[in-house]
Amino acid sequence: MTAILTVYGDSASGNCLKIRYLCDYLGIAHNWIETSVLARATRTAEFLALNPAGQVPLVVLPDGRVLAQSGAILLFLGEGSPLVPADPYERARMLQFMFWEQYSHETAIAVRRFHKHLAGRADADIDPWLLTRGHAALALMEQHLQAHPFFPADRLTLADVALVAYTRLAPEGGFDLGPYPAIAGWIARVETELKIE
Amino acid sequence: MTAILTVYGDSASGNCLKIRYLCDYLGIAHNWIETSVLARATRTAEFLALNPAGQVPLVVLPDGRVLAQSGAILLFLGEGSPLVPADPYERARMLQFMFWEQYSHETAIAVRRFHKHLAGRADADIDPWLLTRGHAALALMEQHLQAHPFFPADRLTLADVALVAYTRLAPEGGFDLGPYPAIAGWIARVETELKIE
Repeated sequence: MTAILTVYGDSASGNCLKIRYLCDYLGIAHNWIETSVLARATRTAEFLALNPAGQVPLVVLPDGRVLAQSGAILLFLGEGSPLVPADPYERARMLQFMFWEQYSHETAIAVRRFHKHLAGRADADIDPWLLTRGHAALALMEQHLQAHPFFPADRLTLADVALVAYTRLAPEGGFDLGPYPAIAGWIARVETELKIE
Repeated sequence: MTAILTVYGDSASGNCLKIRYLCDYLGIAHNWIETSVLARATRTAEFLALNPAGQVPLVVLPDGRVLAQSGAILLFLGEGSPLVPADPYERARMLQFMFWEQYSHETAIAVRRFHKHLAGRADADIDPWLLTRGHAALALMEQHLQAHPFFPADRLTLADVALVAYTRLAPEGGFDLGPYPAIAGWIARVETELKIE
């Protein structure tokens, strides 16, 4: 039994890096157990006993209880920190962008990056709809960031941690960020705040 | 300016019905503005001015502020009610299932139901992977419900509200619920609690 948090994560996965970024930012000590999706380390009997959904990130608390889903983990670990607004509406808006990221952003940008960058598929073998949907997500972010420095508004929150992970990796998925200057500025701001290299 | 909550929703959408279920259960007065996705009512300039993402459900608070994403709306409206566990871990587990629903369940079961039931496509014209992924999601739910009466555990939470919406409509998507007796029992329990007819 370890006395600190255990994080099962794949360093190639933005969803997992979100948890690393947050732990590093808040100074949460943790053991990172590298768990490769491509190498099917999330499909072993051992891992499936911890998380039947076979997904990383997964955290195991010091008392042995487990928690899955990056959004839920971010909220569990981030609660009470300056990254979670106290105002109920601002808090809900942060959640809005976290749910939107998982539904409309990750499912296009992270999926195309997986096919192109990690699985090494040729562009012609990747569903073209992913590119369309990914650019639609980026355009929405650009529109928001032309009016606000962060998500949802004026200061860094868990929504920025959630959104930056795959947005900064979007070029690996074949998404040129050139047309999105406000996104580029925001990525730099968030990287500076989170000390991401 | 209305003095009560306005909900833009499509009665054919499980994501929107979640908000109706919660409002009815908690007695939250609201104006429901029927907003059809199929009829492209979410693509009008008027609607896009409210929600640039062009998605329902969308709520407009009495003071005019807007909030999107069913999960964020459920948490905003449900906070402080018996549907949100006070214990931080139980609360996080509820969130885990809400994020999982949007990422791994809705994207298969609701999408296949949309193609088959709402858009009227033939089975042969629907990506077969949706059926595979949907049944994988149902199998995970069945496994959970063999050990627990609700999501995440012993009593009704927002995760049940979120999960029941498309699970009870899964047969419209061509998902036979026969092999999932624990799901069938859970649907009946949640429908009774929420008074869904």
